[in-house]
Amino acid sequence: MAIFFHWSEADIDLWRDALAAENIDLELRPLESLGSAADVEFAIVWAPPDGSLKTMENLKYIFSIGAGVTHITLDPDYPSNVPIVRLQDRLLVEDMSCHIIHWVLHYHRYYARYRQYQNERKWLRHRYPENSARRVSILGLGQTGQDACRRLQSLGFSVTGWARSQKEIEGVRCLAGQETFDTVVREADILVNLLPLTAETAEILNASVFDRMPKGGFIINCARGSSVDDSALLAALDSGQIEAAALDVFREEPLPDDDPYWSHPAVSVTPHAAAPTNERSAAEFIAAQIRTCLDGGQPAPIVDLARGY
Amino acid sequence: MAIFFHWSEADIDLWRDALAAENIDLELRPLESLGSAADVEFAIVWAPPDGSLKTMENLKYIFSIGAGVTHITLDPDYPSNVPIVRLQDRLLVEDMSCHIIHWVLHYHRYYARYRQYQNERKWLRHRYPENSARRVSILGLGQTGQDACRRLQSLGFSVTGWARSQKEIEGVRCLAGQETFDTVVREADILVNLLPLTAETAEILNASVFDRMPKGGFIINCARGSSVDDSALLAALDSGQIEAAALDVFREEPLPDDDPYWSHPAVSVTPHAAAPTNERSAAEFIAAQIRTCLDGGQPAPIVDLARGY
Repeated sequence: MAIFFHWSEADIDLWRDALAAENIDLELRPLESLGSAADVEFAIVWAPPDGSLKTMENLKYIFSIGAGVTHITLDPDYPSNVPIVRLQDRLLVEDMSCHIIHWVLHYHRYYARYRQYQNERKWLRHRYPENSARRVSILGLGQTGQDACRRLQSLGFSVTGWARSQKEIEGVRCLAGQETFDTVVREADILVNLLPLTAETAEILNASVFDRMPKGGFIINCARGSSVDDSALLAALDSGQIEAAALDVFREEPLPDDDPYWSHPAVSVTPHAAAPTNERSAAEFIAAQIRTCLDGGQPAPIVDLARGY
Repeated sequence: MAIFFHWSEADIDLWRDALAAENIDLELRPLESLGSAADVEFAIVWAPPDGSLKTMENLKYIFSIGAGVTHITLDPDYPSNVPIVRLQDRLLVEDMSCHIIHWVLHYHRYYARYRQYQNERKWLRHRYPENSARRVSILGLGQTGQDACRRLQSLGFSVTGWARSQKEIEGVRCLAGQETFDTVVREADILVNLLPLTAETAEILNASVFDRMPKGGFIINCARGSSVDDSALLAALDSGQIEAAALDVFREEPLPDDDPYWSHPAVSVTPHAAAPTNERSAAEFIAAQIRTCLDGGQPAPIVDLARGY
């Protein structure tokens, strides 16, 4: 029995320690020294090379080093009969909420304008609405979306959460389903995307959405780049319909050198850094899940491939 | 009976409405049409001209349009026998906490560096400590300081609050008095100043403080400009001992055109905008206080001039 391990940024000793702490005596094998593919029962991966998982005929579980799983499922040869276990991590939730709160406050209080004024040595104060009059809509109410809703609500903002199925979060207006999407968008001064990438959410942030948002709205995307129609966003930023966008994720990553986002004055680019995997706690989480498997239990949470997350 | 009113930015109708709502039938008089100074029993002011209050021999209370009061007490002729009522406002507390949270997150997550990388089209992720390993110290535990401590603690940061007298805030290490100041400073990755300006706090943020802070620390000043030794801060920023400073208040405001802060790459200047007075709620608060006086009661909170706040 062995574990296929693939993550280019890994500190391999830290993973060995985490497995040892759970008394797991399995070898971590990278692709180049995989040995017999039939030995592999578990895979711990971020963006494994296309076709690599297919060769492992005895694979029982795939552990994703991250909350999203398209880095696995976009492989055309990915073995869809093998369950994928999604990474869950308290730190990941905290980091994502902090990223969202930072950008909501940054836009709400117009700190980008003050930066511009400072360059011009201009002492000019901006009025801004009371927090309760600033409407923030969060698309996607998984663990991170719910946490962000709660925290923004406790800061006094008027928060709407939107998901496919109805959720309940105290103090937060929760709307569900396609029929409420128009309301969510029309009433979003700041629109935050946390939706997983599925056939339904691809380019969900498009020209029609930007047009329906209140003029001068803000976009915060920290889920997947392909959820945004990039040319539509650039057009909305150019026209001023959208005042600014904080983009952490992109259709192609790293963002190509010639991408117009890099130099757009209303765009803040961060390098998929909203909630980077904390390697230590990820290793601990996954080692504990493998321990559960070895003891005959079921790891969790398993991705529902029909939903796509 | 009349009210002396002085605030250059005021929307006077809004103040008249607030008084009317409390059934207060007193005229608001600006300095230029004061009439008999002996008529004036109340003053509602922000930075009244030096000597103006002294002429009002029947003045009972001075209402400050702001949490600080040095804009009144720095007048050498200010009548120190007349009690000053400080502005208290839930919105002011919320706004100040939001300003502090924004800059703590901005520095904690290195968003300023990402801005620089974006200019260079560089896709480079920074490691940052877990929130619980980032030590934030807040100087000053009035209403706003306590609120900021609580909110930062709930975001997972390791928070220390410091004040003259011992306070208790759940989950927050509270230290008090001069003898603990060294500890507070030595363990502050991010140091936030919310102290009122008094003889003891003038230039409390000086070379000795910057030197004792961990290398690469951050300063957030949103109380009073004179609490900072400006040349010492500039030197600490130049040497890299302090990585960056978010300054909202200055010795002279508006910040003079030739001030080195404007162009320092590690300084973010905001124009005393951390918690601007919300005119509507300030007017409502002060009108309610005057109603209390007219009914024979005591307004609150009255400034303790011996302490200076």
